[in-house]
Amino acid sequence: MKIAVLGGDGFVGWPTSLHLSDQGHDVHIVDNLSRRWIDTELGVQSLTPMDSIQERTRIWHQETGRKIHFHLIDLARDYEVFKQWLVREKPDAIIHFAEQRAAPYSMKTDRHKNYTVNNNVNATHNVLNALVETGLDAHLVHLGTMGVYGYSTIGAAIPEGYLPVGIETLEGDTVNQEILYPANPGSIYHMTKCLDQLLFQFYAKNDGLRVTDLHQGIVWGTHTEQTRKHDQLINRFDYDGDYGTVLNRFLIQAAIDYPLTVHGTGGQTRAFIHIQDSVRCIELALNNPPKAGDKVKIFNQMTETHRVRDLAEMIARKTGAKIAYLPNPRKEAAENDLVVRNEQFLALGLDPITLEEGLLDEVVEVARKYAYRVDRSRVPAVSAWTKDIAKTVEKDPEGTRLKSVG
Amino acid sequence: MKIAVLGGDGFVGWPTSLHLSDQGHDVHIVDNLSRRWIDTELGVQSLTPMDSIQERTRIWHQETGRKIHFHLIDLARDYEVFKQWLVREKPDAIIHFAEQRAAPYSMKTDRHKNYTVNNNVNATHNVLNALVETGLDAHLVHLGTMGVYGYSTIGAAIPEGYLPVGIETLEGDTVNQEILYPANPGSIYHMTKCLDQLLFQFYAKNDGLRVTDLHQGIVWGTHTEQTRKHDQLINRFDYDGDYGTVLNRFLIQAAIDYPLTVHGTGGQTRAFIHIQDSVRCIELALNNPPKAGDKVKIFNQMTETHRVRDLAEMIARKTGAKIAYLPNPRKEAAENDLVVRNEQFLALGLDPITLEEGLLDEVVEVARKYAYRVDRSRVPAVSAWTKDIAKTVEKDPEGTRLKSVG
Repeated sequence: MKIAVLGGDGFVGWPTSLHLSDQGHDVHIVDNLSRRWIDTELGVQSLTPMDSIQERTRIWHQETGRKIHFHLIDLARDYEVFKQWLVREKPDAIIHFAEQRAAPYSMKTDRHKNYTVNNNVNATHNVLNALVETGLDAHLVHLGTMGVYGYSTIGAAIPEGYLPVGIETLEGDTVNQEILYPANPGSIYHMTKCLDQLLFQFYAKNDGLRVTDLHQGIVWGTHTEQTRKHDQLINRFDYDGDYGTVLNRFLIQAAIDYPLTVHGTGGQTRAFIHIQDSVRCIELALNNPPKAGDKVKIFNQMTETHRVRDLAEMIARKTGAKIAYLPNPRKEAAENDLVVRNEQFLALGLDPITLEEGLLDEVVEVARKYAYRVDRSRVPAVSAWTKDIAKTVEKDPEGTRLKSVG
Repeated sequence: MKIAVLGGDGFVGWPTSLHLSDQGHDVHIVDNLSRRWIDTELGVQSLTPMDSIQERTRIWHQETGRKIHFHLIDLARDYEVFKQWLVREKPDAIIHFAEQRAAPYSMKTDRHKNYTVNNNVNATHNVLNALVETGLDAHLVHLGTMGVYGYSTIGAAIPEGYLPVGIETLEGDTVNQEILYPANPGSIYHMTKCLDQLLFQFYAKNDGLRVTDLHQGIVWGTHTEQTRKHDQLINRFDYDGDYGTVLNRFLIQAAIDYPLTVHGTGGQTRAFIHIQDSVRCIELALNNPPKAGDKVKIFNQMTETHRVRDLAEMIARKTGAKIAYLPNPRKEAAENDLVVRNEQFLALGLDPITLEEGLLDEVVEVARKYAYRVDRSRVPAVSAWTKDIAKTVEKDPEGTRLKSVG
């Protein structure tokens, strides 16, 4: 199968490209390399030393004999270029990772809010628009987020994308309808994924596009079977306050004797999935496309949920790290439960890697191995969700707030 | 009150600006004049001779002594310019009409789809973003559309924005939640208004912005009390296949002995409101703002519903026009019921003008008066919703299809 991986130079895009290439697919990465530009903007870098996309694909060819093609296209800006590319290359499937994907980055300043909305909405709409315009019947697989649901506090299980509701008619009967699960995004970034959902719904209904939307939890882990094949194939590992997810930041904090920084009470429950499972899920989604005329197929792509403070304790137990409780820069419920349905991927054969079993490898093989590259000043989260919250957020957990270390 | 009217040069924006100025408010129109550029692009013009915005505001001043200010700003592109404008002018309220508002135009080509998404989403987001960034606590009133609901075929009344649903918890209890009425847009244009809704919801929740969203039906009528004050204050009247709404097109068809072109069976039920009622509703919304921290206040801004074929028959009865049934260029249900709740505006004192009483004035005072300006070739609707539909749509109802004239 010829597969376009939009955003194939990113954290999930790269191991996905390798995984699919390894299985014999003809993989074409389309990327504007914006993630590397953002590293430059923020003055941060991946913990793991990461080569250029051209060098990475060269090494992959050298190690495996397989070729991954790279095309530098800005999907959000270069609609006509992408359309011509589609006409020329005619992929059978398109995997769409090409969006700005950090909630804290999306909340930094008004400029970052505008960039995230503009980039993400236009990238997604341009792909859909170009598919209709070219008449190409490629299956579109999109990386969404669990964050479109918001974080439920009502104690109900989050179904896979759709919610059955009963609507009372004028005659007093109840008609059952299946609606897109009500959106409740917690950041500008999450909001763009909610907007994406409506774009997909429209294009599936109006033009019969075949779309799968994967509502992913927080991805953890660095290595997949393929990235292990050579040092220079390694995936990126973000630990900074903007792009580092909660677990990565705990891991690196543990590795450099920095307190594990828990925001608020740590009562926020989050969904997680290992990067190896993530690429397997994408493969499963590719192999199970919807038919033309079907509604958007939605999977919850996660394997376990944990409270943030329980995660911190799990890592503290395994590594001896301390925990510091800091004010929360996000506007969100202090405590929430989260029960997520993920029967679809389990039914398709997914056998999850658990945090309990994989976490220590991650500390030893990645966090400690590359700890010498850490810039401690980049570890705190600095993006506040509102101007009021900004006044209360502590910028330096190694400073005065260390009084509260547990 | 100092009021910014974004898109104040447009069909609803202009009479709104006059109405509010007449009441003594300090009105500032912010507009990029894109609607005039689109006239130029399409080679169409308003049936009514329409002066420049500068000339119109000059006449208004001459007739009433009141001043309406005009500022040429492109909201979608010039975020920084608009932000500086807000800091300088500090309006108490902002009325946001600044979006591409024709469904057929939004479906013309891939370029028009992109333009509509880009312009509308960025304009709305830039306004919200700038309000947060400047800390200005202005009430934002947005013109949405009934089209966000889609056209219900299940026979339930459409509530004012929110739907109560019961969600089953893990313990088997049912928790009642009020959710945004599920979006089901019928065109790219309508979809952008659904995206707007999520933007409003987020900014109201995260930043406490005070937002009112008016889900408007199809606006008919040309004159308001203020536009009647001088010939050169007249409102625009669109009759072309892209910007002309179904009723305006029937009126002009009746005036020039062109058959009333009903698409499909004409069984589509639509919601309507007179332009005079529309500007009154906006005034009522302005006078009843939500409080900071409130959810978005949503009104259904419509006063009556009719099936398209019943409308055609009403006009045929009053004018002697014939009716032609043509293939439908839109992808939509052939027949639908539509019951819409609008108790909020009625409770605030709205006393609607009905089609039955006002329609004939419109034919005589506008359609027949300016019939000499009509370009017959612009009357057919030419934008098809999908490539398959495009093959079936008859472009010339005065030609072979006249066999089906009723």
